[in-house]
Amino acid sequence: MGTEDYKKLVRLYIPEPDFVQGEICALSEGQAHYLRNVMRKSAGDKLRVFNGRDGDWLAELEEINKNKAFIKLDHQILEQKSSPDIWVLASPVKKEAFDLMIEKSCELGAAKFIPVVCEHTVVHKINQERLQAISIEAAEQSERNDVMTVEPLIDLKKYLNSFSSERNLIFCIERMDAPNLVETMRKLAKKPLAILTGPEGGFSDSEIDFVKKMQYVYSVSLGPRILRSETALISALSGVQLLS
Amino acid sequence: MGTEDYKKLVRLYIPEPDFVQGEICALSEGQAHYLRNVMRKSAGDKLRVFNGRDGDWLAELEEINKNKAFIKLDHQILEQKSSPDIWVLASPVKKEAFDLMIEKSCELGAAKFIPVVCEHTVVHKINQERLQAISIEAAEQSERNDVMTVEPLIDLKKYLNSFSSERNLIFCIERMDAPNLVETMRKLAKKPLAILTGPEGGFSDSEIDFVKKMQYVYSVSLGPRILRSETALISALSGVQLLS
Repeated sequence: MGTEDYKKLVRLYIPEPDFVQGEICALSEGQAHYLRNVMRKSAGDKLRVFNGRDGDWLAELEEINKNKAFIKLDHQILEQKSSPDIWVLASPVKKEAFDLMIEKSCELGAAKFIPVVCEHTVVHKINQERLQAISIEAAEQSERNDVMTVEPLIDLKKYLNSFSSERNLIFCIERMDAPNLVETMRKLAKKPLAILTGPEGGFSDSEIDFVKKMQYVYSVSLGPRILRSETALISALSGVQLLS
Repeated sequence: MGTEDYKKLVRLYIPEPDFVQGEICALSEGQAHYLRNVMRKSAGDKLRVFNGRDGDWLAELEEINKNKAFIKLDHQILEQKSSPDIWVLASPVKKEAFDLMIEKSCELGAAKFIPVVCEHTVVHKINQERLQAISIEAAEQSERNDVMTVEPLIDLKKYLNSFSSERNLIFCIERMDAPNLVETMRKLAKKPLAILTGPEGGFSDSEIDFVKKMQYVYSVSLGPRILRSETALISALSGVQLLS
């Protein structure tokens, strides 16, 4: 089986156990349903699995019925490659746009997503489990072999009060006189990064003051265009990835 | 009325006529419906309009009924600012993702979008009018005062045969040994740009050969991650905008 063929296999995230050749692992009920009813797979079919630690493995469906499925691990086909240590701090926005932010952040390699409530945030409730599932699906469908963690919703200032100075914070603001991302990325200290983007109404003046007083904060503008929240985030994350 | 208040007004694209103070303009049936039934506007309400040439104007609803609405132009509130001369050449993909590509390309300032059929393209039909409407809506909701044009679907090689060497072509390819976008943008001749992204299956070998033989083509990689078509495009366009 060549690399091209591996690419066509269904790829699933199986957080437990550690992968060992010949081991039998149980899939979740949702995965069993997906393989059986959506992908029409049956015993003997091959698939690709990853657990976030052991790279990508080739596996074979051992047994599959209505609610249960078991696979047998064959061998490693790709080494574990960790994603860059980038965190996303972003205000929730309306469902469709926020789902997109989660999906694209995972696809673009972020390690952690922290939904933060800002003064102008309208959405005050998220379904963390649902968002985590979107992140897992995005990892399965891209080729990263770890998964972006989605954290619980937290108040922005409260979160930033405990934010470690071990990490640079890229503060994306609109309509403000701020250096652009390219200049900023050139002068950053070599540290892990976090990106902060706001709700549709932008950050409040008090939030801007608060964030700017923190250490290792770099305010950046994403250009002359006014971008929706989800576009600003995808744009900033793409930029950071291209430039780091 | 201050800048902050202008931002809250409904903003509409009215391609004709040229804007002159005191002039009365007819809105389309769709716009009349939107203002009346969705936004609950009535005569005397203010709005913002642009035609792609004369900047942003303040206007007042003169008359509105079931299918018709007329506005009276007041004065210019923002000068015309043209978007950068960037074209997008991209393979259609499934509806939701392609709609997103159109919306985000407009929001990120592209001037023209040319849907191109590649060998691995699965979708062979687009609704140009519907996509143009998505582009107009994205312009209305961002702050650009021109609109990205959506062209008819055309075969990739056929289109490239008539592609002018007046324009640099950024050729986004996956899994290939290509310089990254940052290095490439540094050494480009100062010319207008086009970005080319492919379908889910990527470009065929014959397409890659074909494109690489053209003049002013710059093959770039968008990083180690495998991105979906829509993410690759948004990422490339964000990068080009940040770097040019």
